[in-house]
Amino acid sequence: MNLSDKVKTTIRDVADFPKPGILFKDITPILEDSQLCAEITAELAKPYENQKPDAIVGVESRGFLFGMLLAQHFNIPFIPVRKAGKLPYETISYSYDLEYGSATVEMHVDSVKPHWNVMVHDDLLATGGTAAAAAELIQKQGAKVCGFTFVVELSFLNGKKVLEKYNSRTDSLVAYDGD
Amino acid sequence: MNLSDKVKTTIRDVADFPKPGILFKDITPILEDSQLCAEITAELAKPYENQKPDAIVGVESRGFLFGMLLAQHFNIPFIPVRKAGKLPYETISYSYDLEYGSATVEMHVDSVKPHWNVMVHDDLLATGGTAAAAAELIQKQGAKVCGFTFVVELSFLNGKKVLEKYNSRTDSLVAYDGD
Repeated sequence: MNLSDKVKTTIRDVADFPKPGILFKDITPILEDSQLCAEITAELAKPYENQKPDAIVGVESRGFLFGMLLAQHFNIPFIPVRKAGKLPYETISYSYDLEYGSATVEMHVDSVKPHWNVMVHDDLLATGGTAAAAAELIQKQGAKVCGFTFVVELSFLNGKKVLEKYNSRTDSLVAYDGD
Repeated sequence: MNLSDKVKTTIRDVADFPKPGILFKDITPILEDSQLCAEITAELAKPYENQKPDAIVGVESRGFLFGMLLAQHFNIPFIPVRKAGKLPYETISYSYDLEYGSATVEMHVDSVKPHWNVMVHDDLLATGGTAAAAAELIQKQGAKVCGFTFVVELSFLNGKKVLEKYNSRTDSLVAYDGD
């Protein structure tokens, strides 16, 4: 079985979470398979082996999981993006619209250095709002996004389109088209 | 410089976070030093090299960081403990008292297997309430806590005492006695 199929087989579908009508892709069974986690990390890293990023930005909280493994893989800094009010030091913040209301994410001011090429990582690409917010925080600090990596992509939500303007790669291991 | 001193030198003190009078120990500068992260992982793992745990339980969200690295180090499952309502599948939950109010944490029902020896990991040991709650969730599933690991311990809050009843090791890399 190839890696993508292995990941698909391991992901658990949970109906009506977080609200009725949504079929949630639960990645926690993946985390229970350490060998699979190692393979996922290597596969997400593969396109960057010849030109490795200067840092990984991981989005709270599931983006911390493979974000840390990717940072260790490349031997580069890991930088967390967190919900407003969670990071203790001085931050820059970015707000974006959700289906209902809005969300704000933050990054420490001194974390990303100007001219760095930074990979944004999260476990799941849905509408792309959070990943784009992370990219905005990176650009605000004079750095560039060299790519977005996700374990899962819900392609029917067109998040990839939202990320196009950053002129970088977007890779996910498995994609779901919806029903 | 030994590892403990290196960690202490790297941690950033942030005054008055999350509220006035608290000197917060910010570990994000550690995450920017991938070599240091590798050394921390190896050091936290060291007491378990002869008898490795069956799984690592990491507490949301900063416990995800080194929790995943520890799980990879031992090649064992990583199991997240999350705040109530975050885990999509069936969960067991445990509520505990905080200074003001209470908190509830959850774990998926099928994650920890009976008779497993499980390590609980979080970045910081304060009063021990969250780590104890994770231990209760592990025991509820018929498994045993073989140890608690933390990067930082605020020893003046006596969290270690709260964890004594689980009859397991408790290790932290650096401890602060308060002023």
